Amino acid sequence: LVMSKGTVVLAYSGGLDTSCILVWLKEQGYDVIAFLANIGQSEDFDAARKKAENLGAKKVFIDDLRAEFVTDFIWPAVQANAIYEDRYLLGTSIARPCIARRQVEIARREGAQFVSHGATGKGNDQIRFELTCYALYPEVKVISPWRIPEFYNSFKGRKDLMEYAEKHGIPVPVTPKAPWSMDANLMHISYESGILENPKVRAIRDSWVEMSFDHFFGVPVKVTNMTDGHSKDSALDIFSYLNEIGGKHGVGRIDIVENRFIGMKSRGIYETPGGTILLKAHLDIETFTMDKEVRRIKQGLGVRISELIYNGFWYSPEGEYLRHCIAKSQENVEGKVQLSVFKGQVYILGRESPKSLYNEELVSMDVQGDYEPSDASGFIKIIAVR
Amino acid sequence: LVMSKGTVVLAYSGGLDTSCILVWLKEQGYDVIAFLANIGQSEDFDAARKKAENLGAKKVFIDDLRAEFVTDFIWPAVQANAIYEDRYLLGTSIARPCIARRQVEIARREGAQFVSHGATGKGNDQIRFELTCYALYPEVKVISPWRIPEFYNSFKGRKDLMEYAEKHGIPVPVTPKAPWSMDANLMHISYESGILENPKVRAIRDSWVEMSFDHFFGVPVKVTNMTDGHSKDSALDIFSYLNEIGGKHGVGRIDIVENRFIGMKSRGIYETPGGTILLKAHLDIETFTMDKEVRRIKQGLGVRISELIYNGFWYSPEGEYLRHCIAKSQENVEGKVQLSVFKGQVYILGRESPKSLYNEELVSMDVQGDYEPSDASGFIKIIAVR
Amino acid sequence: LVMSKGTVVLAYSGGLDTSCILVWLKEQGYDVIAFLANIGQSEDFDAARKKAENLGAKKVFIDDLRAEFVTDFIWPAVQANAIYEDRYLLGTSIARPCIARRQVEIARREGAQFVSHGATGKGNDQIRFELTCYALYPEVKVISPWRIPEFYNSFKGRKDLMEYAEKHGIPVPVTPKAPWSMDANLMHISYESGILENPKVRAIRDSWVEMSFDHFFGVPVKVTNMTDGHSKDSALDIFSYLNEIGGKHGVGRIDIVENRFIGMKSRGIYETPGGTILLKAHLDIETFTMDKEVRRIKQGLGVRISELIYNGFWYSPEGEYLRHCIAKSQENVEGKVQLSVFKGQVYILGRESPKSLYNEELVSMDVQGDYEPSDASGFIKIIAVR
Amino acid sequence: LVMSKGTVVLAYSGGLDTSCILVWLKEQGYDVIAFLANIGQSEDFDAARKKAENLGAKKVFIDDLRAEFVTDFIWPAVQANAIYEDRYLLGTSIARPCIARRQVEIARREGAQFVSHGATGKGNDQIRFELTCYALYPEVKVISPWRIPEFYNSFKGRKDLMEYAEKHGIPVPVTPKAPWSMDANLMHISYESGILENPKVRAIRDSWVEMSFDHFFGVPVKVTNMTDGHSKDSALDIFSYLNEIGGKHGVGRIDIVENRFIGMKSRGIYETPGGTILLKAHLDIETFTMDKEVRRIKQGLGVRISELIYNGFWYSPEGEYLRHCIAKSQENVEGKVQLSVFKGQVYILGRESPKSLYNEELVSMDVQGDYEPSDASGFIKIIAVR
Repeated sequence: LVMSKGTVVLAYSGGLDTSCILVWLKEQGYDVIAFLANIGQSEDFDAARKKAENLGAKKVFIDDLRAEFVTDFIWPAVQANAIYEDRYLLGTSIARPCIARRQVEIARREGAQFVSHGATGKGNDQIRFELTCYALYPEVKVISPWRIPEFYNSFKGRKDLMEYAEKHGIPVPVTPKAPWSMDANLMHISYESGILENPKVRAIRDSWVEMSFDHFFGVPVKVTNMTDGHSKDSALDIFSYLNEIGGKHGVGRIDIVENRFIGMKSRGIYETPGGTILLKAHLDIETFTMDKEVRRIKQGLGVRISELIYNGFWYSPEGEYLRHCIAKSQENVEGKVQLSVFKGQVYILGRESPKSLYNEELVSMDVQGDYEPSDASGFIKIIAVR
Repeated sequence: LVMSKGTVVLAYSGGLDTSCILVWLKEQGYDVIAFLANIGQSEDFDAARKKAENLGAKKVFIDDLRAEFVTDFIWPAVQANAIYEDRYLLGTSIARPCIARRQVEIARREGAQFVSHGATGKGNDQIRFELTCYALYPEVKVISPWRIPEFYNSFKGRKDLMEYAEKHGIPVPVTPKAPWSMDANLMHISYESGILENPKVRAIRDSWVEMSFDHFFGVPVKVTNMTDGHSKDSALDIFSYLNEIGGKHGVGRIDIVENRFIGMKSRGIYETPGGTILLKAHLDIETFTMDKEVRRIKQGLGVRISELIYNGFWYSPEGEYLRHCIAKSQENVEGKVQLSVFKGQVYILGRESPKSLYNEELVSMDVQGDYEPSDASGFIKIIAVR
Repeated sequence: LVMSKGTVVLAYSGGLDTSCILVWLKEQGYDVIAFLANIGQSEDFDAARKKAENLGAKKVFIDDLRAEFVTDFIWPAVQANAIYEDRYLLGTSIARPCIARRQVEIARREGAQFVSHGATGKGNDQIRFELTCYALYPEVKVISPWRIPEFYNSFKGRKDLMEYAEKHGIPVPVTPKAPWSMDANLMHISYESGILENPKVRAIRDSWVEMSFDHFFGVPVKVTNMTDGHSKDSALDIFSYLNEIGGKHGVGRIDIVENRFIGMKSRGIYETPGGTILLKAHLDIETFTMDKEVRRIKQGLGVRISELIYNGFWYSPEGEYLRHCIAKSQENVEGKVQLSVFKGQVYILGRESPKSLYNEELVSMDVQGDYEPSDASGFIKIIAVR
Repeated sequence: LVMSKGTVVLAYSGGLDTSCILVWLKEQGYDVIAFLANIGQSEDFDAARKKAENLGAKKVFIDDLRAEFVTDFIWPAVQANAIYEDRYLLGTSIARPCIARRQVEIARREGAQFVSHGATGKGNDQIRFELTCYALYPEVKVISPWRIPEFYNSFKGRKDLMEYAEKHGIPVPVTPKAPWSMDANLMHISYESGILENPKVRAIRDSWVEMSFDHFFGVPVKVTNMTDGHSKDSALDIFSYLNEIGGKHGVGRIDIVENRFIGMKSRGIYETPGGTILLKAHLDIETFTMDKEVRRIKQGLGVRISELIYNGFWYSPEGEYLRHCIAKSQENVEGKVQLSVFKGQVYILGRESPKSLYNEELVSMDVQGDYEPSDASGFIKIIAVR
């Protein structure tokens, strides 16, 4: 009879890597609880549950986190217009704290002292994952096999994993997926390699939608198809619908080299259809309704939180602080944006808002309004004094 | 016999407004030198010259500034990845100092104490124009008719201008253009109103090009059509070719509301085909070759210079300083970027550089290289201490 | 019988300039309400009231704004550690919006369409004053005599003012004060010229005090003399007491050249005794209790609001926004700071806080605590990867 | 006969800790080269050399780095007005890269594969030290005993060190110094604990000096005693003289809690006499001669490099980049500053510069100069449009 070393909640993807880790953790003497978060990836969750049970998981939790992923993680990113290094919409970065938050909830509830994950020892995900765990459950111990020499020295390549799987009765996928293919989620899909092809656009005509930002918080509350009048009004439905339209038109595909937190550069190919539409619509309504100087300050805070999010500090004092300040800036960000999506592009067609700071009369060419053009002479002379 | 009040160099566009201003300045007692800058707008320059002469201009200068516009203004904007309010590529903003620089050169050479322009009293262009004049020719006096009550009270609408034109023998265009249509230049075209339509894309297949950034300064030195092998290698040819490709595919069209320097919001519809391709290619090669922390600092400087440029401070101590610092950051930005342009989109296909900081071995999944994954454990624990 | 042009509320100081302006405004046909704010300057308010009445003021308001000056203007500056150009504590800059706020309240209440002030046409105060008026009473008209050619051409120097005063029965001070001497207030005194002498320190021994920052907002709620145990606990009393101690020891005296908003540099000699003590104490307790990364962000916001305040934008959307964000950062800034003030210097002696993030055990040399030094090796190796 | 594990260059202070480390390294099988940098600390260097030789150092290098410490490290910090968290002048932080730079030079020259130091495993110095080593000698291996479990578990407290010293014939100081007392250098002294007393000021009258910043680089080239006319003009002499004056008057003493890079807060008591005088003088001449908007940008870069320096990134791409940009900003920073130092205070008495941007006539009350006050009306109205 062997004493258990304790219980570990493993972030389980259903794939080869975390299946091997599940078995390896058991070999090391742990009781393993498998936790699989549904954040919008395409997965056969029932099959994954059975597989985990067969591999000896003490318990299996498969939780649908999609709605909270949208409201608690995507929405704040939208408020911030969060972009890393001018291009990357942080689709993976914001998924990690969402998953890890639930994982430590389970660990606390089930009395597990350990959590584990399958992220590699060179990437950003390990950091995002673990910083969340330490922030929300400071006493937890993290088991990160890809950083443990006994593990990573045994599994130097894909082949070693396959052999281990075969030996331990772990079903091996016919077409092997790379470990990072687990990044697919509601927000985005990342591809492992290859040239980014032109989108295989299925659509032959453009889609016109109207997005309503009606609330205090600068996030969408409705999206309406302007052709058929149908609309969606829950956060998850709105985002899913934008994904559908964006996906159909090949919107938001990029091939970039990014700077990892751990001092390396790496290549990423990402597809973020709904997020891209939303970013453009939000930028538009925000500029339309927000004071320009407030926006300059807020823009700087947005750059900052984008770096934080990328680097794994979603749950951190400065992350909380920035989210508060950014949310505050959104108080007047409400209104409607009409846009057309077509062949990879998002075109803003118009916008309207009760909080508009846009004074049509003031900018008009033909009407003077209250504004006295001669005042501008003094203005220009004064700013030229220097 | 009437004494002249002096000589004024007028930034003349060939259109209705500046033609009226030319005549009005003469009426006020000035000798008028008409100056028309060719910065890539489509214009019948010979006809414009004749028109100015007929209207009584003492001299007419029509100067081709296209090459210097690219090297002295567009290239620094490219180095900075200059974007105003996250979207606008500053195509008009950088043209103003280019034109005004030559205009004050002419004024100095011709002994003119005055310069004049047709920019309205509510816009940004008057500021960009005049700040350049005061910076490069501090003693100059600027005559800005649209801010002079006697002028603007006489011309309250388009109709007044037309009547004045007819009375003074100024040819009236059949299809009247709005005054701001003069914004068209090598860098971009701005449309005066209307809904932004989907680009009428003339191309049926994508264009593949390779751009070479070979120099110390992070600017392109060659662009090659990857299908037929043809290439361009002067600054003006490169940029014109990118405009051609981008225009064919409807790249870089936006409809935005922007915050003017003079505290108003205004709507702008812009088309910046070559600039958009170049921005994406430059972002790519820059991230590929520049240290990540240097880039973070440089990114902040880029936001700052974008605001300066928009607000008219191209020629200012801080403008000079920022351009110096940004240029310094480009020392290692060299290499090649392959990209495909298709139906409004720019897809990066690949990049290579002798200065690459991208270490394929280091990021590879299967090879450890020098990097010790277990080090990351200490790293994460330390950053979680807080 | 002459029709009044309307009623103007004049920011009246009791000195020569605004007395002349009062009379001049009457000459121009206005009814004049004199408003004198008590913000801590030394002034014979009764004499000033009589003088204004004698000069023909329709009404005279003398309001004690000292308490609200401390709580509504000095406290937010303390939260921000507001310093302009690394040295100036903004004592004048924050007084202007305080005075102007009350002035437009009076104007609204009394149905006055005009406000007026005696600030010169080259300084910052005119801007601070008028931006506040326009922000809080957008329809108001400002009469700024020092920018009106008929006024300033009549009063080219001190002598012209004296002659005008004599002619109109305005009492002329025996020792003429320069117009800007009106800057003295609770927060600071500014001197008009001369070499800054070593403080004529009256104190022969040091003063020990303890300041308590007990509230949610990071502002002092008590100051205790550690020698005699006496304490103050209202905002006005606390600040006045710090002024007394600081003044006695010659704390906070500077001679600087500053960059005015209107593109000029000017010399200022300032004495800010209580503000200087408070800045040092607040910096100390803030660093002691605030997360370091939150503080970095907040520090940037503080630099920004300092510029805004200096430039007159206290009442502006971005001013409101920044004050909100800065106040939010102060939630944990509470505790006690002991300090000694002696001969121009403020020495922090110690600090304590229930919210302290300072872990004595963790930093101790002799105790390891939870911290594992070997983790630092991985940390350093990882940050050196670049 | 035992094979050597290789040669290690040890940063040796002459004190108890590094003496023990020297012996311990030998015990582990290394050849040890002791390197003692003279950066201005008070030390009996001859005695230290003998001690190291007696303890078995293969070679001993004692190098006078004072002049290069001033020109290569203090001067760039002066250009940046470098301050960490608003108060700390970085006296220790800039000494580490200076020492480590020479240490790796010796290691390369002597063919040593290892370097070692006595910095603790919780502090910043280990990071500053090692990042410099890795930057300048990437293949070097660092031996950091206070992070090696076998070492730090043997030496849990001061007592263990003393016993080890006695056993190995290491001379034990009569009054034991704490390990961090090695921080004393030309720039500053740090005290290990205790209340910061009022400075025991030896001076009974103030010292008047004039500092000349004559060069392109904004650093002092001469300091003159205004009483006796004596002057210093080499970098080391200038800085030493400022230290002497500042020390005599108790200038630049602070007690702060600072945020370490490794997520802890720690208390520091520092005395930086010459650095404090120089900071104030440099701030003054810089504000006097630098364009205000350039200075705003440069100020932000200064905050950034201060953090970098504190965190150990002196030698890093972003450090180089920032130093370049900051140095560029100093091109016009030249002139003379007169100041008085007395009882802990530095008073600026005056300044003059051929590059002054200060226009006495323009700011004068009585003269209008070129400036038209009525222009300010337009200016204020325009900035209030928002």
